Amino acid sequence: ARAERRSMAHQDEFVVETRGRGTQDITPEVARIVRATGVRCGLAHVFVLHTSASLLLTENADPDVRRDLETLARRWAPDGDPDYRHRDEGADDMAAHARSALTGSALSLPIRDGALRLGTWQGLYLWEHRGTPHRRRLVVTVLGD
Amino acid sequence: ARAERRSMAHQDEFVVETRGRGTQDITPEVARIVRATGVRCGLAHVFVLHTSASLLLTENADPDVRRDLETLARRWAPDGDPDYRHRDEGADDMAAHARSALTGSALSLPIRDGALRLGTWQGLYLWEHRGTPHRRRLVVTVLGD
Amino acid sequence: ARAERRSMAHQDEFVVETRGRGTQDITPEVARIVRATGVRCGLAHVFVLHTSASLLLTENADPDVRRDLETLARRWAPDGDPDYRHRDEGADDMAAHARSALTGSALSLPIRDGALRLGTWQGLYLWEHRGTPHRRRLVVTVLGD
Repeated sequence: ARAERRSMAHQDEFVVETRGRGTQDITPEVARIVRATGVRCGLAHVFVLHTSASLLLTENADPDVRRDLETLARRWAPDGDPDYRHRDEGADDMAAHARSALTGSALSLPIRDGALRLGTWQGLYLWEHRGTPHRRRLVVTVLGD
Repeated sequence: ARAERRSMAHQDEFVVETRGRGTQDITPEVARIVRATGVRCGLAHVFVLHTSASLLLTENADPDVRRDLETLARRWAPDGDPDYRHRDEGADDMAAHARSALTGSALSLPIRDGALRLGTWQGLYLWEHRGTPHRRRLVVTVLGD
Repeated sequence: ARAERRSMAHQDEFVVETRGRGTQDITPEVARIVRATGVRCGLAHVFVLHTSASLLLTENADPDVRRDLETLARRWAPDGDPDYRHRDEGADDMAAHARSALTGSALSLPIRDGALRLGTWQGLYLWEHRGTPHRRRLVVTVLGD
């Protein structure tokens, strides 16, 4: 009987080449991985393997929302703040770690009827916090039936 | 044998009618959904299908804690900030997206012995960030044995 | 057949005695629990059963990163702010709740080949936000095959 049991956990990884600070929509790539697993009901867990880029789930209609979030993030964690001790990797590096800690490296999304179950205006973005382009690796783990 | 296998993923949705900006305790509704699944050990994933309301896990004893979080949130993302470009939906809309990005749309809670395993003083709240009442839909996904 | 099915959910708890405000690396303890379950592919969910300590996933190389995050956290939620109403438990208590709400009580990490799948520079820390030492209990839930 055990041999007949289908596995309930699936995993895949992908890479995003960022263009420096800013957001890139990764919803289509995550949706594609979810569909490929055949899981009908469960969760898709997305994870960034870095500490200076993070995940952002926000409105996908008006790009000014993400621009304004960038404006606020610069207040939450200023670049090159004189109080930082971690300075060796550039003025944006410590700010990038702080922005990542605030917005998070991991996010789980529901799967229903074999597809991501998101609200109409929800998009999932990779948020690059460093000023220069980076190669960012992500892991998607899908659990369910 | 496959037919005898019990499913390990369960999903339910519910709606909260908010009263405008502020928090509402959703712990009892999530606990009820968890009990109904019969899952003894696992996770309950709660997800808000909107980008201007979020989840908050915080102290459930003194309501002033949530009032003070509201005070701080108005500093983290001021309403009607002159630097915002996203303004068409009102002075509170961009602030609501930012507050949601900071506190999160998804949260997983452990299940032990068939019930939510929370600390004594932990409560789960839906945090409405818009000024006016809204109809908010949430998805609860339960995974486990 | 049902009797032959291996369980897909595992759970363990552990306690950290904190030394007051600051971070402690809990990556080794979570990794140990993951290995003990025998799960090869899945997720490890870590949860803090308190509302004035939280989880932090950040760079594990330069300890100044965590020191600078502490500096920023004191700005995000100042101790003893005159606008706080929740004051009975000390000047650091309301700040601790706010810092926990911002950085989060729950985090899921991918498991691959029977071990935590983390980036080279990622470490998982328990962040004590109260000024004095506390006994903090955490739950680790492992789901997968």
